[in-house]
Amino acid sequence: MRIALDAMGSDRHPEVEVQGAVAALREVDGDFEVVLVGDRARIDAALAAAGAGAVADRISVVHATERIEPGESVSAVRKKKDSSIVVGLGLAKQGEADAFVSAGSTGAVMAASLLMLRPLPGVDRPSVATILPTAGDPIVMLDAGANVDSKPYHLLDWARLGAIYAEDVLQRPNPRIGLLNIGEEPEKGNELAVESYRLLEASGLNFVGNVEGRDIAGGGACDVLVTDGFAGNVLLKFYESVAGLMVKLIRKELAEQKAQVHLDGVFRMLDYTEYGGAPLLGVDGISIICHGGSPPRAITSALRVAVRAYRTGMVADMKRTLSEAHAIGQRAAAGTAGGNA
Amino acid sequence: MRIALDAMGSDRHPEVEVQGAVAALREVDGDFEVVLVGDRARIDAALAAAGAGAVADRISVVHATERIEPGESVSAVRKKKDSSIVVGLGLAKQGEADAFVSAGSTGAVMAASLLMLRPLPGVDRPSVATILPTAGDPIVMLDAGANVDSKPYHLLDWARLGAIYAEDVLQRPNPRIGLLNIGEEPEKGNELAVESYRLLEASGLNFVGNVEGRDIAGGGACDVLVTDGFAGNVLLKFYESVAGLMVKLIRKELAEQKAQVHLDGVFRMLDYTEYGGAPLLGVDGISIICHGGSPPRAITSALRVAVRAYRTGMVADMKRTLSEAHAIGQRAAAGTAGGNA
Repeated sequence: MRIALDAMGSDRHPEVEVQGAVAALREVDGDFEVVLVGDRARIDAALAAAGAGAVADRISVVHATERIEPGESVSAVRKKKDSSIVVGLGLAKQGEADAFVSAGSTGAVMAASLLMLRPLPGVDRPSVATILPTAGDPIVMLDAGANVDSKPYHLLDWARLGAIYAEDVLQRPNPRIGLLNIGEEPEKGNELAVESYRLLEASGLNFVGNVEGRDIAGGGACDVLVTDGFAGNVLLKFYESVAGLMVKLIRKELAEQKAQVHLDGVFRMLDYTEYGGAPLLGVDGISIICHGGSPPRAITSALRVAVRAYRTGMVADMKRTLSEAHAIGQRAAAGTAGGNA
Repeated sequence: MRIALDAMGSDRHPEVEVQGAVAALREVDGDFEVVLVGDRARIDAALAAAGAGAVADRISVVHATERIEPGESVSAVRKKKDSSIVVGLGLAKQGEADAFVSAGSTGAVMAASLLMLRPLPGVDRPSVATILPTAGDPIVMLDAGANVDSKPYHLLDWARLGAIYAEDVLQRPNPRIGLLNIGEEPEKGNELAVESYRLLEASGLNFVGNVEGRDIAGGGACDVLVTDGFAGNVLLKFYESVAGLMVKLIRKELAEQKAQVHLDGVFRMLDYTEYGGAPLLGVDGISIICHGGSPPRAITSALRVAVRAYRTGMVADMKRTLSEAHAIGQRAAAGTAGGNA
């Protein structure tokens, strides 16, 4: 297996990417190689500094002269044909890589993935899935901000995609699907939530009902949480920031009081780098997006996700599930039509 | 000034309400009385236990035979005419009380307030405002869950109402209004956010633009944050739960390690009881809703808010501002019509 890694994406590129890749090749099980995509001279220097050693023969470099900057999005994808994102996704498209990982502009990685890998048949809107850490097992939430003004059938698609991601990559058999809402009862929430509830209930998925904001952090409410990208993105960004803020405040207090306390367990719960990497689900390939501010550890986590997604055949599973769901939908529609005739 | 306090609302009624009232009468500045509404025998027992002492002559009791239970909502308001909520709001309606405070069913308090106090002229949908603690000054957020599928002009109304609440009750001159969104630029977000941005920009309010989920906890982004009740409620419930969970986890760790550390400053930032009480803004009166799980301290905080709202003439300020805004809107509309003729 070969993973194309955008070496120019993060705020501290290419050092972060190179260090993350070297660590992944040492730590992560699975027979895989990493193709670093970007400025060859800078990558080579970072590789020399990182001391790849025994894993050096599993690393290669593909040169790309351009970089899509953090603010840039769709138009940059069309203009910068020799950017690390476009070149890296090109490798995936041409079958020269089995997955793509980038800590570059989220908008650009999404746009380029849609354009170059194409949505899976039957998927109207691919969705960014993210991991929410909890006091129990982490939750997969989607959509994390790729899609707003979504329709109920989008949420249904995302529930199916998220379920396969949870099953294949997180090894959660028969994952429990929750709908983010503002009350427990089926009739609670906005129009989107009420109608999505109805679709999810009839979907054959392991739907456990509405999940409120208060049910998330404690863990255990569900494995996959579906919502429109507006609420999802607000929640995700808030979670990241409040966790970071609290850790900062507490560390400061502990330092001032010269306290000998170990809160690593609590801090780890809040540590996104443990789960770094949000896959774009619903495209015909593996494309994983990391924060621009990612440390090497988050890149390593994203590469681990890519390996698991490939080894478990996640994309093929998604294709099969979606075509089955659509076949059932067509049969149901045909049955209804027959009944009406 | 007299405040009608629903003595039967909280999970541990009437003790919590009685203790909160006694503390408020001792601690909160302002010449006010509290009318406890509910089961007289139980209230009297709680009063005897609380030892009202010097403040006893500022407390009176109005008997009510019924209680609206936490799950109940609109229909209970119509059925239970002698419930503490309906009787208490009746005192406010008849001018026998200047404000109403309850830790009972949020849905019932809202429904009864709308029904009995009536919306202010020009307010289509009154809104529950809540306080979000931050590392800096707390932020007023509305809507906190009363309204979903909102329109842009609802958010504009709430911005006006929230601004007056922030100015009068929180003493923030010229409060900065933010729009909860998933990006910085005006064109970001869903249809509601894009159109609301346009209205807020033209409103004459001190609008500071979009505020993302990540901008909240650190403080300083704005004084008033407006959003639809769906995202608002998800955010609020998540914030409350994640704060509670973290404090619990950290306290447990500290206890296990027998650590002599004082994290009270950090914990206080996350302590909702400091700010207890979410006012329903846009009705013709002062109606403040507390959590069912409120401790006495949260009731005290809510009574403090009621005193400030009354002393500063908050409701009159809202009436004036709304009628001015509508007059300007009508002139603008007339101007436009003239220009088109």
